[in-house]
Amino acid sequence: MSVANASGPRQSHEIGEQSIGSYLIDRLQDYGIKDCFGIPGDYVLTFYSQLQQSPIRMIGCTREDCAGFAADAYARIHGMGAVCVTYCVGGLSVANSIAGAYAEKSPVVLLTGSPGLNERVNNPLLHHKVRDFRTQLDVFEKLCIAATELNDPMTAFSEIDRVLDACYRFKRPVYIDIPRDMVNVVPPVARAYRRPDHAEDQFALSEAVQEASERISRAQRPIIIAGVEIHRFGLSEQVIALAEQTQIPIASTILGKSVVRETHPLFIGLYEGAMGKSEVTQYVEESDCVLLLGTFMTDINLGIYTAKLDVKNCIYATSEQLQISYHHFPQVSLKHFLDELILSNPKRTQRSIPNDLHVKAPVPPQPISEADDRKGLQVSRIIAHLNTRLDSKSIVIADIGDSLFAATELVIHDSTDFISPAYYTSMGFSVPAALGACVARPDDRVVVICGDGAFQMTGQEISTLVRNGYSPIIIVLDNHGYGTERMLQKGDWAYNEIHTWNYHLLPSVYGGGKGYLVRSEAEFCQAIDAAWNDRTQLHLIHAKLAEGDASNTLTRLAERLGQRIE
Amino acid sequence: MSVANASGPRQSHEIGEQSIGSYLIDRLQDYGIKDCFGIPGDYVLTFYSQLQQSPIRMIGCTREDCAGFAADAYARIHGMGAVCVTYCVGGLSVANSIAGAYAEKSPVVLLTGSPGLNERVNNPLLHHKVRDFRTQLDVFEKLCIAATELNDPMTAFSEIDRVLDACYRFKRPVYIDIPRDMVNVVPPVARAYRRPDHAEDQFALSEAVQEASERISRAQRPIIIAGVEIHRFGLSEQVIALAEQTQIPIASTILGKSVVRETHPLFIGLYEGAMGKSEVTQYVEESDCVLLLGTFMTDINLGIYTAKLDVKNCIYATSEQLQISYHHFPQVSLKHFLDELILSNPKRTQRSIPNDLHVKAPVPPQPISEADDRKGLQVSRIIAHLNTRLDSKSIVIADIGDSLFAATELVIHDSTDFISPAYYTSMGFSVPAALGACVARPDDRVVVICGDGAFQMTGQEISTLVRNGYSPIIIVLDNHGYGTERMLQKGDWAYNEIHTWNYHLLPSVYGGGKGYLVRSEAEFCQAIDAAWNDRTQLHLIHAKLAEGDASNTLTRLAERLGQRIE
Repeated sequence: MSVANASGPRQSHEIGEQSIGSYLIDRLQDYGIKDCFGIPGDYVLTFYSQLQQSPIRMIGCTREDCAGFAADAYARIHGMGAVCVTYCVGGLSVANSIAGAYAEKSPVVLLTGSPGLNERVNNPLLHHKVRDFRTQLDVFEKLCIAATELNDPMTAFSEIDRVLDACYRFKRPVYIDIPRDMVNVVPPVARAYRRPDHAEDQFALSEAVQEASERISRAQRPIIIAGVEIHRFGLSEQVIALAEQTQIPIASTILGKSVVRETHPLFIGLYEGAMGKSEVTQYVEESDCVLLLGTFMTDINLGIYTAKLDVKNCIYATSEQLQISYHHFPQVSLKHFLDELILSNPKRTQRSIPNDLHVKAPVPPQPISEADDRKGLQVSRIIAHLNTRLDSKSIVIADIGDSLFAATELVIHDSTDFISPAYYTSMGFSVPAALGACVARPDDRVVVICGDGAFQMTGQEISTLVRNGYSPIIIVLDNHGYGTERMLQKGDWAYNEIHTWNYHLLPSVYGGGKGYLVRSEAEFCQAIDAAWNDRTQLHLIHAKLAEGDASNTLTRLAERLGQRIE
Repeated sequence: MSVANASGPRQSHEIGEQSIGSYLIDRLQDYGIKDCFGIPGDYVLTFYSQLQQSPIRMIGCTREDCAGFAADAYARIHGMGAVCVTYCVGGLSVANSIAGAYAEKSPVVLLTGSPGLNERVNNPLLHHKVRDFRTQLDVFEKLCIAATELNDPMTAFSEIDRVLDACYRFKRPVYIDIPRDMVNVVPPVARAYRRPDHAEDQFALSEAVQEASERISRAQRPIIIAGVEIHRFGLSEQVIALAEQTQIPIASTILGKSVVRETHPLFIGLYEGAMGKSEVTQYVEESDCVLLLGTFMTDINLGIYTAKLDVKNCIYATSEQLQISYHHFPQVSLKHFLDELILSNPKRTQRSIPNDLHVKAPVPPQPISEADDRKGLQVSRIIAHLNTRLDSKSIVIADIGDSLFAATELVIHDSTDFISPAYYTSMGFSVPAALGACVARPDDRVVVICGDGAFQMTGQEISTLVRNGYSPIIIVLDNHGYGTERMLQKGDWAYNEIHTWNYHLLPSVYGGGKGYLVRSEAEFCQAIDAAWNDRTQLHLIHAKLAEGDASNTLTRLAERLGQRIE
């Protein structure tokens, strides 16, 4: 991500010349935002038309929450994203997408309009109002790292600076509300924003680096577990440098999948407790020095608490905290900790990676017999075929459920991106996220793996992909229901069944793209062949799975989750 | 609405025998709830399976916000509704639907699960969590009239009683969150809920009734404007009794359309300020005594503040306040005020309704010439044709925009229901609301009028209608964009254009129903004929409107709204 002038506030030479709306648009571009997703509505029309006339490209979506998911994916790939919607009916429709961005640290700017200040006198019942004029702001103060309503020209510019800075620094969503009569107001004078000095404790940093370095040097079997923050804060090079310098192997988490290229010789796979491959689990849990770098200690990341990590042996460094064993070092930045740790030059580890842990380049799966193929299509075989096609120009987006769990078996190449809401696990993320990815990287090939339940929620965003001429490949895994839930609870519950659609017919509804209905591995291979070789249009593969099919990962996860629900 | 035992808490004989989940399910049924809309998810699975095994029918939807809209429409028709979703990814997805129910006073119970209390120790990063475990509750405290998390067996029963009572009394949504390890807990002892005495001021009531009665008796040209609360609180009979006794004519508002049957001889039409028909506007604004009964004084109800009502001449009575002229009478119930006003027997008005204001029974519109028909399909003609088909077994659901404005021209029969989010104006309400209406009144004929922009948001709920064998008629008004917005802002803004779908092909995707593509009035008439005569399946009419077509109401509204945006 390249950010011009993003670290500090603008110079004040525009003061007295520039409107609040125009200043906001300039500052968004300073942070690299070139595109904005959204749906117009009357309270935001004035600002929307300013955006439309600016260099920022507006991408209209079918639904606000889709626009939010698209902006989230765009932010994950591009560095920062934006979504613009109208008051309450728009804003509250994007609450879940913004909540997901908060939970998984994706820097999304939510822009919204609201009734003009001059319309609010005596608290009239203007349309779209819920309880009072603050309701929307009240809600997003709970879901964002910073929120502001630009209701005062004197503070509007510094508020914009403050809130965008928070988005950039904390990699979490922010909320900016422009009452519609403030958009064209030119502040006569304005206070410059001063970012509060980031308190960093040099003594704590030195002490932490020294202790960590000694622990690594002393360790017989150290391991790095790289998490999603390594990507968000742009620290992949540091992690690889540290690993190569010390020859420490690297594992990753589900949410952090692809933060380090999976073909790196030191990479050994995903660590997911009992849910993951037993060789990786065993290798990690035997370690006498676990470096958890930028890792969220979530339930799913940790295989629903089946992970057996001894805190005594852990060095846990994130943007929010640094903990070694049972003691904490407050006010130490993750980046500085990594930089200094590399400079401290810890001893190389002598432990070698067992042969069976070396990640092998994917090879085409053994063909199955016609007889086996007649038994039906398995998601693990779909993944195996996909695995041989991915290259450094691919972006894989997995929805939740078996889309995600099966996709953990993919080997992510050099700079392939893997995107999934693996912590917040909100269904329906993937198709709108594909839009965000296509807009951010139009030259890359986007592949979506999505369950049928998730697809029914937001699949209409294919309309926007078709409209803008993008050519992702969307694979709908049809098991006529909520497959993960079926495995969580004993018994056949009718509510886990969903209505069957003819997904492959949707391109004719949206007037573009090509649909495929596949029921066997042979048919899937034909379809993926055709799709992969055709970049002129969108491809929608309706994959009817064999009855009861599930990936190994899901089977293992369900066993664990199920125990917790009973 | 018949509510058994809804006015007070349950007797305590179940205490010590009944689980929290089971008590909640019993209480929902006491309030007449027979059906519940939703989507399952792991934190709510335990309660969901209890619901599934109860007499309450579970209706699975494609999306949570659709489930919320369906529950809202069900509540408007049936008296109270319920929606059940999982933690955060489900709950926050329903935020906008619940906000709409709050704004328009629809009594919806939002049921949700959350992580078990025993899982929350040390604040772990469980999936679906946003900021902390309270986030979802924090948000819904802003969007509901009452909210509770059932985290204490000692108070769980009385909390359920308190919150359901608030829903019933205030006709606004409430939030009930059951941590998943509390569902099966049987409280050993419980406090009974005591509804706080409703403070009513008998002296204020008497004084207000006396003044109102005198004003009515004295008035030369009194008028009643009946609002939506008359329906919500079941006061239609009182309003009609008062009108008949005094021979005062009745107008209604957009949001209150159909609260009084529009074929009643005293009914003169909708009052919408400058947006409405000039004869009605003039008649109302000449009045020297305006009885606003259960009316929301919203911008759209009042024709965007073009209504010219002199407060000096108004008696404004709602569930929340009673105001005569410029003075207020606190603590007077709307029902008691109406009852006493009728008993006070005000003088009959001598003013007669001019002939041109008598609402006439709809007749089929004059056929248009083939030449005119070739110019394209007009929404006002669609409405005119529809008007002749409605009967007392019809339910009309209008989405917002020209769907709503054109639909104001329909004459709503005896007990026809007219449902629209005419104040909160959230796009995409209508198709999911049709599901709610079909579930509440399976024998009635539901007709949906929906713009293309709104349809793209939630049209997939057709899937659930097809799945459950319902046969509504859904008319998609296709003007390839956000038609209302086009008229709000000068200039051609690209963002008001949307992607064109072949809506009529969707039945083949959902595996049921019949689609029609119509481009002329003749084609529309054929399609509506076929649809009306076939109750065996759903009908989806894709109506391609003439370029630039808009109803008269929208044209007038846009002129007014546009002036406020510039």
